[in-house]
Amino acid sequence: MSLHGGIDLGGTKIQTVVVDEAHEVRGEARRPTPHEGGPQDVAEAVAGCMREAAELAEVETAALTGVGVGSPGEIDSGAGTVSSAGNLPGWAGAFALGPFLSEQLGTPVRLGNDVQVATDAEFKLGAASEYDSVLGVFWGTGVGGGLILDGRPWLGRGAAAEIGHVVVKQGGALCPCGRHGCLEAYAGRGAMEAHARRQHADGHKTDLFKIMEKRERERLTSGVWARALEHGDHLATHLVDRAVEALGTGIASALNLLDVEAVIIGGGMGVRLGQPYVDRIVDAIMPHLFNDARPPDVRLAALGDLGGAIGAGLLVAPDPG
Amino acid sequence: MSLHGGIDLGGTKIQTVVVDEAHEVRGEARRPTPHEGGPQDVAEAVAGCMREAAELAEVETAALTGVGVGSPGEIDSGAGTVSSAGNLPGWAGAFALGPFLSEQLGTPVRLGNDVQVATDAEFKLGAASEYDSVLGVFWGTGVGGGLILDGRPWLGRGAAAEIGHVVVKQGGALCPCGRHGCLEAYAGRGAMEAHARRQHADGHKTDLFKIMEKRERERLTSGVWARALEHGDHLATHLVDRAVEALGTGIASALNLLDVEAVIIGGGMGVRLGQPYVDRIVDAIMPHLFNDARPPDVRLAALGDLGGAIGAGLLVAPDPG
Repeated sequence: MSLHGGIDLGGTKIQTVVVDEAHEVRGEARRPTPHEGGPQDVAEAVAGCMREAAELAEVETAALTGVGVGSPGEIDSGAGTVSSAGNLPGWAGAFALGPFLSEQLGTPVRLGNDVQVATDAEFKLGAASEYDSVLGVFWGTGVGGGLILDGRPWLGRGAAAEIGHVVVKQGGALCPCGRHGCLEAYAGRGAMEAHARRQHADGHKTDLFKIMEKRERERLTSGVWARALEHGDHLATHLVDRAVEALGTGIASALNLLDVEAVIIGGGMGVRLGQPYVDRIVDAIMPHLFNDARPPDVRLAALGDLGGAIGAGLLVAPDPG
Repeated sequence: MSLHGGIDLGGTKIQTVVVDEAHEVRGEARRPTPHEGGPQDVAEAVAGCMREAAELAEVETAALTGVGVGSPGEIDSGAGTVSSAGNLPGWAGAFALGPFLSEQLGTPVRLGNDVQVATDAEFKLGAASEYDSVLGVFWGTGVGGGLILDGRPWLGRGAAAEIGHVVVKQGGALCPCGRHGCLEAYAGRGAMEAHARRQHADGHKTDLFKIMEKRERERLTSGVWARALEHGDHLATHLVDRAVEALGTGIASALNLLDVEAVIIGGGMGVRLGQPYVDRIVDAIMPHLFNDARPPDVRLAALGDLGGAIGAGLLVAPDPG
C-alpha cells in the first residue's frame, strides 16, 4: 500500500493528510498558522503538522511516496519556492519551502497553488467530477479561485483565476491587496474582520468578539461568524449579507465571461456556512447573470475542509491507471 | 481565383466585403442598419449590401464560394437562425437569416457570433496573430467580447465572452440589457447616447446633437463623438472618460480571471478613437490589475472597421493549406 501526504497551507490554519492510493484519508492533523515570525516559523509548523498526520496514520514521513503542498502566494514549482504570500507572516520575499520540507520530512515535496489544487480535488474526486468546465470559489481568509476549462486547469500566464480580485464596485472598499472594490474587499474573512473591528471600535454593538474570546480565538474564524449569525447578531448579519452580495456579483461577472457548466463554493466560510449560503449566493448571482435562461450548477464543495490537503496530495499521487 | 463574402451585421451599420484566398479585400460596401421594421427588412438590407460589394468586385454573388455572417444575438449555426438580437429592430424572436440570405444570394451562408468572428480575424490575420490567448473587446453600440484560449475560441456553453456584461459597479447604472452596473451601461455607445439625450433634455450644454444634425445622422455615431471630443465638448468628454474608466475596470476583472497574453481593442468607438484611447484604457486597467508586474499587451485592432466582415468571411474561407 503506497501512501502520500497532502498539505493545505492557509492564512488561518495548516491542514495535513496522509492519503492512500484510493484517496482515502489515513491520518489528518491541523494547527493554526503562526501569525508572527517569518517563513521559517511557518515552515517548521507545517513540517510538524505533517509529522503529526503521519503518526496518526502509523507511517514515517520518509516512507511516504511524496508530499504535495497547496500554498498561497507565487509558486515556482521548479525551484520549490513561495514568494509574495501576503496572508502569511513576513513572507514578502521568496522562501524555498519545497527543499526545506523535503529535508525535514525525508521525501520528495511538490508545490502547487492552494486554490488550484483544491479545485482539482473537487474536479477529480468531489462535487465537480461530472463537469468539464468549472469555476472554484474558495471563500476563506481571502477569496481564492480555480478554473478548469475543457477538463484542464486554466492558469493563464501563471496568475489566472483571481476571482477575489474581480472588481465588484469601481471606487469601492479598500482590499487587503491595496486595490479598491475587489470582491475580496467585501467577502474575504480577513477584510470582514478588519471591518468588524473598526465598526466595533466606533461603538457598534456586536457579539462577534465575545464569541471569539469565549472560544479562545484571536481571530474571527468561520465558526465565530456562524455562531454570531445563529444568534442574529446585527453587525455579523450585515457584513455576511454584504459578502454574499459581492460574491454573487463577482461570480456572475466570471460566468458572463466564461459560461462554465458549474461553480463550486468551498473555503472555510463556504464549508462552514454550507448549503443555505450557497443558495443565497445563487440568488445574488441571478440578477447579474447574462445567460440567465441557463444558469450553471452551483454546488457546495464535497470534500469540505480537507479538499485543499487532499488536492495538494494529488500533486504527488500515483496516476490512476 | 476563389472569392468569398463576409458580412458584419451591427446595430448601427452593415459592412460587407468580397475577399480572395489571400484575405485581400476585392470589394466592400456599407449601409446603415434599418432601425425600423423587423428582421425581414434588416435581412433585405444585408442582401442588398452584399450584392453591392460583389458588384464592386465584379463577381456575381452566386459565384462566391460562400458568405459568412457575423451577427449579434443568439446564433444557431446549424439552423441558420438568429434570435434575441436586442440591438436590431423587432428581432426578439428567431429569424432564419442563413436560409434567407442563401436563397437571395445563391450561395451557401454560414452564421457566427459578430464579436467572436472579429476576434478570430484579429487572431488569424491582425493584431493578435502572435499570441495564443487573447481577449477581444469591441467597443461600439454595445461592448462585445471574444476569447481565444490556447489558440482556440472559448465559447463556454455558447454564451461566453460577454465582457460588456461584466459588472463594474454593484447597484450601478441601468444597462440596455435590463441589468444594473454592467460595463456596457457605461461604455456602450447606445447607453452613452441615451445618457447624453437625458442630460441634454435636462439642460446640460453639449454640441453632440448639433454635430449629429450637421452630419445628417440620426444617432451619435463614433465620428460624432470623436468630433465633439476634438472640440472639447464637456458632456462628451465626461461621458467618454466614464466609459474609459469602466472599460479599464471591466477588462482588469477579465484579466484577473484569465491572465491572457493580449487584449485587442476594436469596435466602432475603439477604431475611431484609436491609439490615444487604447493608452488611456491601459491607464484605467492598471489600478485594478492583480498581476500588475506583468501586464498583458493591449493593442488596437489592426483590421479596423473591416475586421468584423473579414472575420465573418473566415467562416467560409478555404482552409489555408
